[in-house]
Amino acid sequence: MARNLDFAPVESRITSELIECINFSAIKHKDQRRKDPEETPYINHPIGVAFILTNEAKITDLNVIKAAVLHDTVEDTETTLDEIEQIFGQRVRDIVNEVTDDKYLPKEERKQLQIIHAPGCSREAKLVKLADKLYNLRDLERSTPMGWSDLRVQEYFEWSKKVVEGLRGTNSALEAELDKLFAKRLNVNNTTNKL
Amino acid sequence: MARNLDFAPVESRITSELIECINFSAIKHKDQRRKDPEETPYINHPIGVAFILTNEAKITDLNVIKAAVLHDTVEDTETTLDEIEQIFGQRVRDIVNEVTDDKYLPKEERKQLQIIHAPGCSREAKLVKLADKLYNLRDLERSTPMGWSDLRVQEYFEWSKKVVEGLRGTNSALEAELDKLFAKRLNVNNTTNKL
Ligand SMILES: [Mn+2]
Ligand SMILES: [Mn+2]
Repeated sequence: MARNLDFAPVESRITSELIECINFSAIKHKDQRRKDPEETPYINHPIGVAFILTNEAKITDLNVIKAAVLHDTVEDTETTLDEIEQIFGQRVRDIVNEVTDDKYLPKEERKQLQIIHAPGCSREAKLVKLADKLYNLRDLERSTPMGWSDLRVQEYFEWSKKVVEGLRGTNSALEAELDKLFAKRLNVNNTTNKL
Repeated sequence: MARNLDFAPVESRITSELIECINFSAIKHKDQRRKDPEETPYINHPIGVAFILTNEAKITDLNVIKAAVLHDTVEDTETTLDEIEQIFGQRVRDIVNEVTDDKYLPKEERKQLQIIHAPGCSREAKLVKLADKLYNLRDLERSTPMGWSDLRVQEYFEWSKKVVEGLRGTNSALEAELDKLFAKRLNVNNTTNKL
């Protein structure tokens, strides 16, 4: 009982903040679906990215988990960075900003910039990016998105590997899981500094 | 820094357990949609019920919040109570069991049993039921489900009021919000012991 009382304030704060964050993201993404044939609700993706971080990467830093839950809201919905900062604070805003592509750039340029910017990201943003890539590549392994050719899937793997090269040295569990997928799909050995 | 170290273990445990629970529920409900015209993902409902509890009822008891997140999994998906117990423990299983209708009974009998069983529920189950009813009635206020007549909406409000009568004395914030909706829709004064 004493233990409960000791921990009650921090327990309460974490629980409230996490539920608020997930509810916010679920409402923002409510009209979006994943590209799989089942049209899975989009919100399953950010929740799954957060679960990869807690379950596989053993990361429970609240700012990282909140940023994972929110990571696609600014890029894919009408959510603004100021809105994120107001509700979730400046650190969460900064991480979300680091993982948000500039939607005014053409797609190929955005993809190129992800490769270039990866090494300069904060550790927190690198964790979210690693977990995001791992979720997306596992999703591609599971089923091909509607309208995607085998070549497009293959190119996505190749591009992802280039981004991940710039994120290495951040979390060995996630990097090992990514390497398994690259080895299987790209028929290469896992080599850390291949680029 | 000392504070962070003191609280790190419980912070980590709560964060991991909540994300695991929400990820579990999101996967279980992934093929389900709400009955609103926008076909909102079903998972937005249990997340919203949890948020009503943390935000409005000021409840952060982890078993109650987990049960809120899971409250429709056994009734609406192939999830079993044993599965819930194995992953989330016996207390969460028991609360989920209390808020799960017997799907082998005809619908009218299930609705009648909700009225009869409400007063005998545990405080934790009453909290989940109050938040669930509040979410559903607000949803009905916002938009009429596809295929529902005005009469059906009205009857849902009347039935909900009867269930809520048996849940009173549990959380004044939730009960006040429910009374506002009943007063507006049913044109009656809020009277606690009207039944
Ligand atoms: Mn993403
Ligand atoms: Mn419900």
